[in-house]
Amino acid sequence: MRTSIATVSLSGSLTEKLNAAARAGFDGVEIFENDLLASPLTPEEVRDRCADLGLTIDLYQPMRDVEALPAEEFARTLRRARHKFELMRRLGADTVLVCSSVSPLAVDDDALAAGQLARLADLAQDFGIRVAYEALAWGRHVSTYDHAWRIVEAAGHPALGTCLDSFHILSRGSDPRGIEGIPGEKIFFLQLADAPRLAMDVLQWSRHHRCFPGQGGFDVAGLVRHVLRTGYDGPLSLEVFNDVFRQSDAGATAVDAQRSLRLLQEQVGLTAPPAPVVPTGVAFAELVTPDAEPVAALLGALGFARTARHRGGKPVDLWQQGQARVLVNTGTAARREGTHLAAVGLESPDPAGAARRAEALLAPVLPRRRAPQDAPLEAVAAPDGTELFFCATGREALPDWRADFPAAGPGAPRATGVRRIDHLSLTQPWHHFDEAALFHRSVLGLRAQESVDVADPYGLLRSRAVTNADGSVRIVLTVGPAPADDTAHAQHIALATDDVVAAARRFRAAGGRLLPIPANYYDDLAARHEFADGELETYRELGILYDRDTHGGVFRHCYTHTVGRVFFELVQREGGYRGYGAQNAPVRLAAQHAVRALTGG
Amino acid sequence: MRTSIATVSLSGSLTEKLNAAARAGFDGVEIFENDLLASPLTPEEVRDRCADLGLTIDLYQPMRDVEALPAEEFARTLRRARHKFELMRRLGADTVLVCSSVSPLAVDDDALAAGQLARLADLAQDFGIRVAYEALAWGRHVSTYDHAWRIVEAAGHPALGTCLDSFHILSRGSDPRGIEGIPGEKIFFLQLADAPRLAMDVLQWSRHHRCFPGQGGFDVAGLVRHVLRTGYDGPLSLEVFNDVFRQSDAGATAVDAQRSLRLLQEQVGLTAPPAPVVPTGVAFAELVTPDAEPVAALLGALGFARTARHRGGKPVDLWQQGQARVLVNTGTAARREGTHLAAVGLESPDPAGAARRAEALLAPVLPRRRAPQDAPLEAVAAPDGTELFFCATGREALPDWRADFPAAGPGAPRATGVRRIDHLSLTQPWHHFDEAALFHRSVLGLRAQESVDVADPYGLLRSRAVTNADGSVRIVLTVGPAPADDTAHAQHIALATDDVVAAARRFRAAGGRLLPIPANYYDDLAARHEFADGELETYRELGILYDRDTHGGVFRHCYTHTVGRVFFELVQREGGYRGYGAQNAPVRLAAQHAVRALTGG
Repeated sequence: MRTSIATVSLSGSLTEKLNAAARAGFDGVEIFENDLLASPLTPEEVRDRCADLGLTIDLYQPMRDVEALPAEEFARTLRRARHKFELMRRLGADTVLVCSSVSPLAVDDDALAAGQLARLADLAQDFGIRVAYEALAWGRHVSTYDHAWRIVEAAGHPALGTCLDSFHILSRGSDPRGIEGIPGEKIFFLQLADAPRLAMDVLQWSRHHRCFPGQGGFDVAGLVRHVLRTGYDGPLSLEVFNDVFRQSDAGATAVDAQRSLRLLQEQVGLTAPPAPVVPTGVAFAELVTPDAEPVAALLGALGFARTARHRGGKPVDLWQQGQARVLVNTGTAARREGTHLAAVGLESPDPAGAARRAEALLAPVLPRRRAPQDAPLEAVAAPDGTELFFCATGREALPDWRADFPAAGPGAPRATGVRRIDHLSLTQPWHHFDEAALFHRSVLGLRAQESVDVADPYGLLRSRAVTNADGSVRIVLTVGPAPADDTAHAQHIALATDDVVAAARRFRAAGGRLLPIPANYYDDLAARHEFADGELETYRELGILYDRDTHGGVFRHCYTHTVGRVFFELVQREGGYRGYGAQNAPVRLAAQHAVRALTGG
Repeated sequence: MRTSIATVSLSGSLTEKLNAAARAGFDGVEIFENDLLASPLTPEEVRDRCADLGLTIDLYQPMRDVEALPAEEFARTLRRARHKFELMRRLGADTVLVCSSVSPLAVDDDALAAGQLARLADLAQDFGIRVAYEALAWGRHVSTYDHAWRIVEAAGHPALGTCLDSFHILSRGSDPRGIEGIPGEKIFFLQLADAPRLAMDVLQWSRHHRCFPGQGGFDVAGLVRHVLRTGYDGPLSLEVFNDVFRQSDAGATAVDAQRSLRLLQEQVGLTAPPAPVVPTGVAFAELVTPDAEPVAALLGALGFARTARHRGGKPVDLWQQGQARVLVNTGTAARREGTHLAAVGLESPDPAGAARRAEALLAPVLPRRRAPQDAPLEAVAAPDGTELFFCATGREALPDWRADFPAAGPGAPRATGVRRIDHLSLTQPWHHFDEAALFHRSVLGLRAQESVDVADPYGLLRSRAVTNADGSVRIVLTVGPAPADDTAHAQHIALATDDVVAAARRFRAAGGRLLPIPANYYDDLAARHEFADGELETYRELGILYDRDTHGGVFRHCYTHTVGRVFFELVQREGGYRGYGAQNAPVRLAAQHAVRALTGG
């Protein structure tokens, strides 16, 4: 189906919005009136610009409080409408949206509303325009879609139909099944928005917290299925008021928006893009660093051995312990960024299929070969810029990415018992947190867990994990309290062990520095749980944190010092523990701040 | 009365929080458990640090879900409580807060709750500790203060009392008059927080949007009056969970917090600081600039004349037209800041009294003389750093600030009809918007109007005016969409005229550049209002914006180009119009962005 987006959903000038919508592959736009009023382009220039960009103008919304008015008021409305229909003719827009009135002058009289809407439709018809009447969730007398439809039906005018808006319908908890009772040709327009489930005033909720389908808590796909059964064949159009999107780069937001519609169309069976290929493990994490020395020292103390170097002579080393593999790349280091986690290799049963899925969902596909002699590797960029490689390790039918890394060194002489990468924590750009979760769900087929707030001493962080079914891929997406803090919070690699105490001791014996945890934390643990003799003293000595879930699952974990933006965590999961120790995060964050304050780092 | 603040209300490490609270003049603190757990200080070191700073530890809150539990669960609670009372002894804290349970295990049984709380109080008594039981607004079975008090009364234990929290009481709409039925000696603690009136889930409201008394929509002072009538003589303690305060400088937040309590104590008659001296006009606005040339050109085109220069030889010129006066200071320009509005002279009937009021409410008082030969001027710094001078112009009993500016030049040869400064718009630091409004209300005695959202192409702005009764002082406080935009949005000086069309024409004739407004805006005006012949064409030609309020008041206004961070507005008010043309702000902001995009500025 055709896809459309309201200009109010994007940041910037009207020109910037139109360019972004076209580049992201939208077929049309709804023009928000204030965007036009504030633009130096004439309506004719806007029309031509849209045509050049391959965009139709699917909807214009210049009027409020139109129907069920006293006669004198309604006469003024018609006067205004004439001006606006004239403008729409210049714009080349043929559908006008009329929302149910919120005016204190409006009367609770459906017959009057129907009559006045029919008169408006009469006038519109003269200009070749159709009127789409929509129930605002906070409309004064008309606030449900079925009520709006009854009025449209009563008016019985060919140029009058209804507009359905998923936010207005789902935020009120209306049953969307009734939509199927509306003839498809009388649904003149369909606006789509999702929203997080918030118990707040619906007007504020609508104006500030809408998001793209799949990013919130509404069953938007379910609603669209009902609409499609009516025979509706107009556009799927996104109208999203969101404080964050207003500030974000319009190009990225438009891609995010178009991706949400592609996923929606797949969900309702309109399209069949390549199916997601869910990754089955983490093949490697790649650190880019301007200075390999501190990274090598840290990996060495953690018990990793430098087992291979890139055969093409690129300055990339492979460090390994058990099934945990870390690439250290000193070749492309942007000095300004310092040491950071730049890429993740995901074990894929079908790397080419995974890349096709990613491309269909608008993930930027990266060049398959990084150098002429490299093995081809499928890769895409995540919204935070992390490169995701789809690769295979030791599978018969697929080329092994390690072909580029012929074994060079012996295994780790002082392995600490690390078995594999447990999870990766990636800091997200402030404006793209919801986008990131939708990306990992739709492109990679991962599941998103609930978002949690974590108190840092200097502001609240938000954190959300995306995982595969068996937990062999776990990525924690984290966002700081404000744009300025985008890079203040570190990324990390958590390493799975069967015995975190032994691993921590060996790390320390090898010269590694563990993050010191305040004694008060252990006094509190003693108050909350009972421990075997000496157990708590061991944790206290090493700085091991402890969490127990409601099912008796236990998590023990400790942290290394930080190099650049990256630190490591050693973790031990028992009894089916599935979390990440969020309860301990404030203590860990405060301890890291304390270290930074001491070292000035 | 003694004042106290919960450490959770402030940003940073525990040490930073304690320092900030002490510096702002608090007598005590509530220590939030996570702040202690995350601190490297031992409880004894915290106790000593507080003593050194002159702070008592008034409350500790280490337990949740304490009462009305099954026996086995309650035994665990007592075990935990013993640990925590031991810790409180080390801390030197003698009151423990217990909030009503939210546990799914809690039973709806007041007798059980009373019995278990009495047993907890027994244990507490052994440690010299008192238990203060408080109703959480979202408590499972106990959610109102009177219910909590009935349970405390039934328990009848000397070491058990109640804690009142203004947020929990007022957010539920409980009638606070019933507080007077509680004996003052059984109110063990009083926590105060205000909050904006939001229709949202009370838990989210409480955790993210509390603010200091006077900054929100609750009648906190009214509640405190009821509490005082009981004979309560414990501290007034602020417990404010706020996402913004978590990120803000702790020192500034603590001063803001203490100011709110000083104002509250004045409101309830506990103290009588010097009364506010409401300013009666704007004596001058002072621009600081590294380059006087463009400012002089702009003022000249606006019809101002350079009428005087500072007699001490300081590079400060006085420009004047009618009663509008602008000082241009090239002496202290921080090059990095560029041209900005650095100071405002407020006409004061009692400058010394105004300064005493400001000092009593913790406004930073600036040196009275800026140079040995200067006339003494009372001045304080606003939260955004703007210097506010309390001064007199042409009053018999008071020294005239213009004594430092002996008349040097003739009046304006090409005056444009500017009569006075209509209003000033000051950009606020992102984290201090609520603080700024409370400052202007409490220190200057101005009235704050409702806060409004204004859509800029790149994010929502918030804007709030503070004014005196007759509108002769109007200051518009504005905050950008994100911290990074603190200085992106310009400050401005609006100049009152009786004929904005004539003023605009003269400005343009003198070489001034008016902000171009898109033609689409005027097409919309034509649709919305009827105008006399030629009227709209005049506005269109000059870039004059138009607004009409619901009482028929009319506002015409236009904008100059921007120099540094400052631009001017020419305004004409008619028919009692009291606003600022907020409806037109999105168009103006977009037009300014368009100019910047063209000029690269």
